[in-house]
Amino acid sequence: MFVCFMAASLQAFVYHRPCVQAPSRGSACSLFMQFIFQGSPAVALDNFQVLSEHRCFQGVQRFCVHDSSVIGLPMRFSVYVPPQAAEGPVPVLMYLAGLTCTEETFMIKGGAQRLAAQYGMLLIAPDTSPRGAGVPGEDDHWDFGTGAGFYLDAVQEPWRTHYRMESWIMQELLPGVLARFPGDARRVGIFGHSMGGHGALVLALRHPDRFRSVSAFAPIAAPSRCPWGEKAFGGYLGPDRQVWAEHDATLLMERMSCPFPQGILVDQGLADNFLDAQLHPHLFEAACAQAGQPLVLRRHEGYDHGYYFISTFMEDHLAFHAERLASVQAG
Amino acid sequence: MFVCFMAASLQAFVYHRPCVQAPSRGSACSLFMQFIFQGSPAVALDNFQVLSEHRCFQGVQRFCVHDSSVIGLPMRFSVYVPPQAAEGPVPVLMYLAGLTCTEETFMIKGGAQRLAAQYGMLLIAPDTSPRGAGVPGEDDHWDFGTGAGFYLDAVQEPWRTHYRMESWIMQELLPGVLARFPGDARRVGIFGHSMGGHGALVLALRHPDRFRSVSAFAPIAAPSRCPWGEKAFGGYLGPDRQVWAEHDATLLMERMSCPFPQGILVDQGLADNFLDAQLHPHLFEAACAQAGQPLVLRRHEGYDHGYYFISTFMEDHLAFHAERLASVQAG
Repeated sequence: MFVCFMAASLQAFVYHRPCVQAPSRGSACSLFMQFIFQGSPAVALDNFQVLSEHRCFQGVQRFCVHDSSVIGLPMRFSVYVPPQAAEGPVPVLMYLAGLTCTEETFMIKGGAQRLAAQYGMLLIAPDTSPRGAGVPGEDDHWDFGTGAGFYLDAVQEPWRTHYRMESWIMQELLPGVLARFPGDARRVGIFGHSMGGHGALVLALRHPDRFRSVSAFAPIAAPSRCPWGEKAFGGYLGPDRQVWAEHDATLLMERMSCPFPQGILVDQGLADNFLDAQLHPHLFEAACAQAGQPLVLRRHEGYDHGYYFISTFMEDHLAFHAERLASVQAG
Repeated sequence: MFVCFMAASLQAFVYHRPCVQAPSRGSACSLFMQFIFQGSPAVALDNFQVLSEHRCFQGVQRFCVHDSSVIGLPMRFSVYVPPQAAEGPVPVLMYLAGLTCTEETFMIKGGAQRLAAQYGMLLIAPDTSPRGAGVPGEDDHWDFGTGAGFYLDAVQEPWRTHYRMESWIMQELLPGVLARFPGDARRVGIFGHSMGGHGALVLALRHPDRFRSVSAFAPIAAPSRCPWGEKAFGGYLGPDRQVWAEHDATLLMERMSCPFPQGILVDQGLADNFLDAQLHPHLFEAACAQAGQPLVLRRHEGYDHGYYFISTFMEDHLAFHAERLASVQAG
């Protein structure tokens, strides 16, 4: 089950091997032991493959796939390993993308690798849904089904078999990546955009032991009260709004008491076509005030919902997470 | 024919009008007079339309189309206007993209807007070929025809009617953009990637009065001596290699004497799959040595041919052009 990370040349295509096949790599495997997910059993990513890798800002950008046992299908994700990882485990930042996106979107459009190389952070970006699940109608809507997994586990038929994004990310992808790449499991942050901003806020609030920092770009901040969220929650979770409340950042926050004392950062463009109908950051803002949760919600004149907005403020988010994760004792 | 630029809010969707429709904008039109292409008649971009615009790094990213009289078809391009342009005309940097790319590629993947906003430079990126010319077979190859215009004017039938990229860029696009956007016509640089690196070097060498700085990422540096170039030149220019020589950066440089005394910058990845067969930077290097042309040719271990390579070194290129264009007297 255990795999080891070898601090080998970043150019090497084969950069990991089972320890049993590399007995002479004992020191590397000892080093690896620091990388496994704290408090969790080491997780192997079955049939893990690197589909492509590209040197980028002195680190390496990789696109990967594995056979997910949680989802029952191959699942894709991307990882950027910064140059500092050659010296030992580094803080980790997971990005969740929005509707219609894939594991490539953030790495192509976000401009984050430069900053990850500057701050020494490992980036992870999962795909946004199962692909090829074969659920009737899953490709009929751009805001539900394929490309629209909403980072939750469906409980309704016929979605519940494969559409299990939260369990995939928390039980398989994150621990699996941390077992295979030099990320420090005690210093993990999460952020995302739109549907992925919803995902980042909700996963952080549902797993505050796992994520030490959280931010979002234009998140669907109150999904129980917007058309995108009502469609997704109704389809994946069924009619019971009490179940919905477990996946709604605003409703979760209302029940909490300052879950992130170091603050939450949200950026929102004021020329965002989806702001009024879908996003409702003011509701999350009110919930944070009620919960005593420090929130920096920045409203930006003229910026829309896309990656020209996101890339503009990417530097502030990487700096935000780097500062907070630096304050956590290294694993 | 004359159009005027109004130093209006960068958020405005309608940011240009014919002077005759805005008689009260006299001062703006006077300001505009500084922007028109020096030494050329002002060029209108017929049926110019902004297809979309996005605020980005405090400037504006625009995607545009116009009816090109040179090409005889609608042609697309993109322009990034930095925030400094609100104060007056700024240096201009044109980027030519590679095979299969469009006017969007560089703006999405290059990460250049941050730097353009930092240095105060206007960015222009044209499409890479005519679209929908209706030439039989134009969509059959990814390295010839659609998406592969090679930045030259075809002389062979049936390509010569529409495939006139050099004339479009030099006679219509560049002067037209300078008439419509606040770019300083005396401070224009050019760069590009692969086929666009070829285009940047060749257009700079063929029009040294127009371009004051030039650089390239992984250019097709000696197209007369590689399969991509032989296919394109044979198809567009015919069998006469003397005609080819007018569009080959290495052969042009061999006949010159230090056309760019402030130097040329070329970055090349050593893990680039196309390096050995297609790019031949060493031939351009030898030609520069023969011509007394200062050249910084940087060879980077591990980097490949894509935008993860390009974005890594984008900052160096913007700084290179900014420094050289700053030394030119403003128009």
